[in-house]
Amino acid sequence: MVTPLLNDLYQFTMAYAYWKAGKHNERSVFDLYFRKNPFGGEYTVFAGLEECIKFLANFKLTDEEIDFVRDSLPGSEEAFCDYLRGLDCSGVEVYAIPEGSVVFPKVPLMRVEGPVGVVQLLETPFLNLVNFASLVATNAARHRFVAGKSKILLEFGARRAQGPDGAISASKYCYLGGFDATRQVLLFVCFGSFNVAAGKLFGIPLRGTHSHAFVSSFMSTDEIVDKVLRSADGTTTCEDFVSLVQTWLTKIQYSPSLRGIFSETNQSELVAFTSYALAFPKAFLALVDTYDVMKSGIPNFCAVALALNDFGYKALGIRLDSGDLAYLSTECRNFFCTVERELKVPGFGKMIVTASNDLNEETIDALNKQGHEVDAFGIGTYLVTCYAQAALGCVFKLVEINNQPRIKLSEDVTKVSIPCKKRSYRLYGKEGYPLVDIMTGENEPAPKVGERLLCRHPFNESKRAYVVPQRVEELLKCYWRGNADEAREELPPLKEIRDRCIKQLENMRPDHMRRLNPTPYKVSVSAKLYDFIHFLWLNEAPVGELQ
Amino acid sequence: MVTPLLNDLYQFTMAYAYWKAGKHNERSVFDLYFRKNPFGGEYTVFAGLEECIKFLANFKLTDEEIDFVRDSLPGSEEAFCDYLRGLDCSGVEVYAIPEGSVVFPKVPLMRVEGPVGVVQLLETPFLNLVNFASLVATNAARHRFVAGKSKILLEFGARRAQGPDGAISASKYCYLGGFDATRQVLLFVCFGSFNVAAGKLFGIPLRGTHSHAFVSSFMSTDEIVDKVLRSADGTTTCEDFVSLVQTWLTKIQYSPSLRGIFSETNQSELVAFTSYALAFPKAFLALVDTYDVMKSGIPNFCAVALALNDFGYKALGIRLDSGDLAYLSTECRNFFCTVERELKVPGFGKMIVTASNDLNEETIDALNKQGHEVDAFGIGTYLVTCYAQAALGCVFKLVEINNQPRIKLSEDVTKVSIPCKKRSYRLYGKEGYPLVDIMTGENEPAPKVGERLLCRHPFNESKRAYVVPQRVEELLKCYWRGNADEAREELPPLKEIRDRCIKQLENMRPDHMRRLNPTPYKVSVSAKLYDFIHFLWLNEAPVGELQ
Repeated sequence: MVTPLLNDLYQFTMAYAYWKAGKHNERSVFDLYFRKNPFGGEYTVFAGLEECIKFLANFKLTDEEIDFVRDSLPGSEEAFCDYLRGLDCSGVEVYAIPEGSVVFPKVPLMRVEGPVGVVQLLETPFLNLVNFASLVATNAARHRFVAGKSKILLEFGARRAQGPDGAISASKYCYLGGFDATRQVLLFVCFGSFNVAAGKLFGIPLRGTHSHAFVSSFMSTDEIVDKVLRSADGTTTCEDFVSLVQTWLTKIQYSPSLRGIFSETNQSELVAFTSYALAFPKAFLALVDTYDVMKSGIPNFCAVALALNDFGYKALGIRLDSGDLAYLSTECRNFFCTVERELKVPGFGKMIVTASNDLNEETIDALNKQGHEVDAFGIGTYLVTCYAQAALGCVFKLVEINNQPRIKLSEDVTKVSIPCKKRSYRLYGKEGYPLVDIMTGENEPAPKVGERLLCRHPFNESKRAYVVPQRVEELLKCYWRGNADEAREELPPLKEIRDRCIKQLENMRPDHMRRLNPTPYKVSVSAKLYDFIHFLWLNEAPVGELQ
Repeated sequence: MVTPLLNDLYQFTMAYAYWKAGKHNERSVFDLYFRKNPFGGEYTVFAGLEECIKFLANFKLTDEEIDFVRDSLPGSEEAFCDYLRGLDCSGVEVYAIPEGSVVFPKVPLMRVEGPVGVVQLLETPFLNLVNFASLVATNAARHRFVAGKSKILLEFGARRAQGPDGAISASKYCYLGGFDATRQVLLFVCFGSFNVAAGKLFGIPLRGTHSHAFVSSFMSTDEIVDKVLRSADGTTTCEDFVSLVQTWLTKIQYSPSLRGIFSETNQSELVAFTSYALAFPKAFLALVDTYDVMKSGIPNFCAVALALNDFGYKALGIRLDSGDLAYLSTECRNFFCTVERELKVPGFGKMIVTASNDLNEETIDALNKQGHEVDAFGIGTYLVTCYAQAALGCVFKLVEINNQPRIKLSEDVTKVSIPCKKRSYRLYGKEGYPLVDIMTGENEPAPKVGERLLCRHPFNESKRAYVVPQRVEELLKCYWRGNADEAREELPPLKEIRDRCIKQLENMRPDHMRRLNPTPYKVSVSAKLYDFIHFLWLNEAPVGELQ
């Protein structure tokens, strides 16, 4: 789906200028990194690597695309097209932190090496593939954090996502970040070429129920032609399920503790629920707020659920999509428990309560503080569009060319790039938590367990600390080495990436993870790299003239 | 790219339940509308219609997709697959406001009619295709409004967009909303099937220059092997362009008014500019902030531009990507004007100043207030991710089935749907401005020019006004009538949609358009429809029991 033309035109104008200057095959090293964690937090989940590697593997300009590029670069020489025709990623190497890892600002997520002409063409696609993937995975992880481990988290965002692919990416990366399921039927056909087993794109569980339109599309019981329900074990048959539901509705209405909560429920709703239960007796989950939750939706739901129960089916539960979710979920739970008690239906009180309606980190946090009885959250808009912060600012900076380190200066110190082809390590402390990430020059010795090491802030000379690591983890691993397969990391299945993500998040020191004023995780450079950065900086910055 | 499977699973569970109840062929009418204008404004630009119609035209489930659906609906009957196999949009009709129109809350953007089983399957794809398209077109229109007509607006967002398709949609709909160009080389191949002339997707102009990496990839003048530049008219040749640039740099440095502004400029930058100019002598546009704008970038740029000028080429200008853009753009302009005056180069002061770096409505407004010399704005992240508000809440509501009007109630009055198959009109006043949009029942007579008419707020009984329209425009036009071509509106080319958008925006009363506290545009219903809404509401709402 992503061709090399999903690109900024200037990558091609630059490729042309490199080629024209005879520089296109010079060996370059670029770092892909971000400068600030999103959502006011102090961590980010890295995602999108697999898509980048697939992009590399398929990188090839078609003749049609080359014609298009030529037409877009007036005055370019024909021989440049020959160059483009021969272009592939066989000369490229990619080192990356494993997908699903917890990552931090300034530390390269990917180091991309290769001929500058081709690596330059990777900038825009890689940023496009990593930026949103990492952002939405982080957003999902943050929602999981606030909802807690025991809740079911469902991704509901297909309709509000930023375009069709926004929806697909969001479903995938929300799952990676710790969601349980999506309600999106994924566009698996598009991914057919990527060896996804047809029918199970990414293997993310799907959940579905019905909408308000389904409820209001029914008018009267006459619409139900086939009223027969075979029991769950196949031994008996209910000849008139509609009447059975009515009987239960009356029983609920006149049971001592529920008497007076409602009088007449909405009939079109009752018919819709009955009809839906006849279609999906094993998976009855009803949206109960089309007319009025407590006066209509809940009694109607219970009547159908009790009728199903008579024939061996257990209803799944309800969904609330409006109103005060703390209050309503509690009222619903009370109603279910009363039904369990009064009508002697064991387990009825444990019905799953799903809540949706513009949920986000803040509203879930507020619900937690008030107390609620929600078991599952369906989260849409805020999750998939990353409403709280719609973009992660990953950048792709040249750090070395022809073995010469390069730096990019800026009026703003946070935008100065860290030069050199580097290695990065995560150092762990005594309690098993990661303490600090450190970047070193490529040829410096690796930090050693038990050996005292000075870690310096890359730009603030007064910030430095000694660390004695208990464990040292090299962060960048090779994921692409031309077309060679040897010594290259496997791209694990999504489920494994998700497990890594969940495990890494759990292993972070809690103060980095809290929602309010989290402690920044430390990112540092070695003393040697620090000195070199500042030497190069002085060297490149023009000296002014005071007068 | 968008198949019927880009959908929520519950659309398929509902389709199954409709089918199981024998209701799937009942004639339904759904309205697609939004409830609130985005970005704190009082208008929205409608976009995405063409994609919806193309989706309809290609709507067909493959056998593979049907297998997938069956596997996702455990317990479903095999005959349902036969139903899915025969499904297409030949029974569907779509009425819509023309794409590129200015639109308002509650008034249907699209009215979709047809068998409920198939129309239900259109909900998620249509919302996905319209929501982001309209949001980003509106965002572009708002940026155009604040930048003013005379500025060049460039879309720079491919790398920060929410996935590959987010980038493509954003480029298209930013152009629709009034942008001049994108720097994205579009993914035209993907759209090949949609009759887009290859090589010119959507016909949006492309712009490109170079990045910081290009500048820092050069080290010394030795890297320029071919120093020859042929003059623009082909009559003469500059044998050593590099030396010519050096000569000009010295002239600038020692010209009376510029003396002392800079001393030594960054050499790698100068080489990069020289090299880029040799590659694109007709389109020299340089990024001047890699090291220091005034001490290095601008003098280096001027030296190259003056050397080009000697051989008949006019440089395009510069791009600033950091720092105080108001101050720097003014300083750059002064520098250019001084060069024009002192070095006698007519027109040099008119060099195009492009600004980028996290621009949005607010920063452009602030620049306007301070005064600046920017001619072109390159806008990325804030534009394409709609950072200020990442989603538009379009919904798709059932308003009629089997000729019976339907309403959806809610605890929140703003979420109550307006029932009935409706017509809508835009009424214009004496000064030519639109005054009010009015919805009526399908069979009510249309409002007439010169005839007094009562317009009522749909939910607030005290808000009503008489209007004597000077012009009446029916809003919904037929864009799809099964597979029949007759009496169906053409889908105009993007340029025409863009022209409509710009014209409609210009024709709005200015107080609806201003950024601070804009006046809401009035949206109303006829007296007859008002009465019917409230009759139906009372009828459907369950009555409580006080005790």
